[in-house]
Amino acid sequence: MTYCVGLLLPGGIVFASDSRTNAGVDNFSQFCKMTVFERPGDRVIVLLSSGALAGTQAIVSVLKQRGAENDGRPNIWTARTMFDVAGVVSDATREVERRDAAAGKGGQLVFNASFIFGGQIAGEPPRLFRTYAETNFIEAEQDSPFLQTGETKYGKPILDRVITRTTSLSDATKCVLLSFDSTMRSNLSVGLPIDLLCYEQGSLRVTRRRRVEQGDAYFTALRGAWSEGVRDVFTRLPEPAW
Amino acid sequence: MTYCVGLLLPGGIVFASDSRTNAGVDNFSQFCKMTVFERPGDRVIVLLSSGALAGTQAIVSVLKQRGAENDGRPNIWTARTMFDVAGVVSDATREVERRDAAAGKGGQLVFNASFIFGGQIAGEPPRLFRTYAETNFIEAEQDSPFLQTGETKYGKPILDRVITRTTSLSDATKCVLLSFDSTMRSNLSVGLPIDLLCYEQGSLRVTRRRRVEQGDAYFTALRGAWSEGVRDVFTRLPEPAW
Repeated sequence: MTYCVGLLLPGGIVFASDSRTNAGVDNFSQFCKMTVFERPGDRVIVLLSSGALAGTQAIVSVLKQRGAENDGRPNIWTARTMFDVAGVVSDATREVERRDAAAGKGGQLVFNASFIFGGQIAGEPPRLFRTYAETNFIEAEQDSPFLQTGETKYGKPILDRVITRTTSLSDATKCVLLSFDSTMRSNLSVGLPIDLLCYEQGSLRVTRRRRVEQGDAYFTALRGAWSEGVRDVFTRLPEPAW
Repeated sequence: MTYCVGLLLPGGIVFASDSRTNAGVDNFSQFCKMTVFERPGDRVIVLLSSGALAGTQAIVSVLKQRGAENDGRPNIWTARTMFDVAGVVSDATREVERRDAAAGKGGQLVFNASFIFGGQIAGEPPRLFRTYAETNFIEAEQDSPFLQTGETKYGKPILDRVITRTTSLSDATKCVLLSFDSTMRSNLSVGLPIDLLCYEQGSLRVTRRRRVEQGDAYFTALRGAWSEGVRDVFTRLPEPAW
């Protein structure tokens, strides 16, 4: 499993992905699921991968290779809008799916790659998308400012309660980390480290990126303060009437 | 879908169940999923049903009918311990499953009835169990004081953060209602009213039971205070370091 989240807010976009892959509980590994395409002053595009690693890695490689070849076909560096980037990601996904499906054991291979991606290209506001395994895609809007993939349920209630159209990037970052904490407590197939990137609207460069490892001092303090705060709120909630 | 929770605490047991049944989003109804067997001074047994209504209703009817017949076979009124009650519930489940499986369209009928049940029989402390569709069952213990069935994921993080071995019945009741609120925000197949029963250890009678309907003043106040409290905690959480 996997857990990835993107939040589109007035101040920019928060991206986060876990880094656990597994084929059964007795076979798990660590892979970074966040890929960043940055050309300062022109574009920042962040891609979070969900699904079988063989598929998602191949798609990211296709995106990088096409971008380096620059053979006239649209690619991640020449796309003029984030909507065009969505087309480029979709095309790469279809290409890898066609290749693997043809070779896969009589169609038994389940292709399930999906992505959350977004960022900003000069001339456009920041935009956030997610693709489905079927290679179609949706875009985040004010009514639904966050998109999740993978194990989405445990971490959704805190996002629902805290995130509004006007939440600050800083509060959104805290909320995303606590959403990961809730998820990792209940699903062993989602695990540290968390790759975190907070894109500041208009910056057209990566200014805030970090990796939250086991024992991270800030993450530990955040979880402690949250747990304590929540228990404190409980003591002040109205008593049930019978 | 369904959402049912039972919490075993030093002060007693909190039970809660939603009341929505559905066969597709265009066909939903309201049925109470909580059944109470009470003989004051001797026993209180509370049963929460999950799974296809045809199966769970039939099982509850078998339990009631056997109890009324009192033909020498163990039943819910003659069982000496809650462990023996678990056997009675299991047997009734197997009986209905055998009958329906034999008649169901060539085995196409999926039997998925499961129950959370617990309470107290004079001479024993309160105990809490859940059965699986396979009719085997587990019992709650100090390390895992709550059991859930149905749509369990959205409502689990708040239980994880708040419930400890020593939580009061009152705090547990608030926590369960907020767990339902988180679930109902995200899954349309879980819906109001919520049937709520708080069994007080040693009472051997039902003293606190209520139904939380749409517009319930306490539930509205609780949700409001919680949302406000949570946002307030956020303003005091440490700022992310980059």
